[in-house]
Amino acid sequence: MEFREVIETTGACRLYRPDAVPDDVLARVLDAARWAPTGGNRQGVRFLAVRDPVKRKTLRDLYVPLWEQYVARAGARPGAPLPKLIQDADHMARHLDQVPVLLVVCAHLGDLLATDRHLDRLSVVAGGSIYPAVQNVLLAARAEGLGTALTTLLCAVEPQVKELLAIPADVLTAALVPLGHPVHPFPRKLARRPLSEVCFGDSWGEPAFR
Amino acid sequence: MEFREVIETTGACRLYRPDAVPDDVLARVLDAARWAPTGGNRQGVRFLAVRDPVKRKTLRDLYVPLWEQYVARAGARPGAPLPKLIQDADHMARHLDQVPVLLVVCAHLGDLLATDRHLDRLSVVAGGSIYPAVQNVLLAARAEGLGTALTTLLCAVEPQVKELLAIPADVLTAALVPLGHPVHPFPRKLARRPLSEVCFGDSWGEPAFR
Repeated sequence: MEFREVIETTGACRLYRPDAVPDDVLARVLDAARWAPTGGNRQGVRFLAVRDPVKRKTLRDLYVPLWEQYVARAGARPGAPLPKLIQDADHMARHLDQVPVLLVVCAHLGDLLATDRHLDRLSVVAGGSIYPAVQNVLLAARAEGLGTALTTLLCAVEPQVKELLAIPADVLTAALVPLGHPVHPFPRKLARRPLSEVCFGDSWGEPAFR
Repeated sequence: MEFREVIETTGACRLYRPDAVPDDVLARVLDAARWAPTGGNRQGVRFLAVRDPVKRKTLRDLYVPLWEQYVARAGARPGAPLPKLIQDADHMARHLDQVPVLLVVCAHLGDLLATDRHLDRLSVVAGGSIYPAVQNVLLAARAEGLGTALTTLLCAVEPQVKELLAIPADVLTAALVPLGHPVHPFPRKLARRPLSEVCFGDSWGEPAFR
């Protein structure tokens, strides 16, 4: 596929067909992760492809209560109809075990360097050695005609996930990415802010282009 | 360009030509960031394209001491010759002001949700709403024939960077990405771990493919 089409049509997929993803396709998707940048090229990201039905069911059971809490905090009123996007995400959460591949994204703590760790704010920089690889996977899946969604709710129960998948002590979990054939066609136009709102030039708020 | 070629040949560029990047090209590169996923599609990432020569020089002057500390901590002996990769990165640091565009990546703190914040380890998850957009920019630059490098050392002096660029209090800095025409051709083969070392199946350490 042409690069630009891949970039512009990779949206979160929430409805998946149960059809298996062939090994050679999954291998090409995961291979894309390898080329992403990491701090000092230490390459500490790991992907655990969970296809075992029992483990997928356990991950689903861990995910659903976190999802319910998230929706409740987001202000959805009990009993009121959910917006379409939340409805789809709700369906995904409750049927997570039926997605053929659940990718658990991990990273070796020792390979991360958080240059913002001493600042008096939330630290984000260690993610710079993890999420570029995740984005490569989302894009590569799209190029193969597969849907994905970048989710992070499951990190809240990391100890349980690590126990389930025998993840070592010095390794963290950074995301859960469902991967499979999408029920619906890929989006033609994702809902995004215009360029002028997200890019500035030389000083905050100044237009990048005249 | 074909998607796969872009993914596999986007490496860190450390030697840049001083030639300006045309506005339409820079706009296409930055536009790619918009399509990346963010938590709840809140789209809190912002890019500040610094082309002003005086501000680029100030950013260089802030960066160089951080780079020197990094090299010293990395164990390079004073006076001893530096490995080629470090030599190139050293050149980049000292000539940062001569790269035509310095992208300062920012994010609204209020748009970030760190589901791993309460865990007894370094938080990384907020980066999941920032670095996918950064990776899109690195890839889109490559597709336009431009070099980039994802650097995060400058985050350590975030207060000074925010003052220089009038970045609001509720916004953080997440990376500095130099962008320009590369001196050398793009890499044909990046140095990366094989797939079998970075992907597992169903349980840590188990092969993903039989």
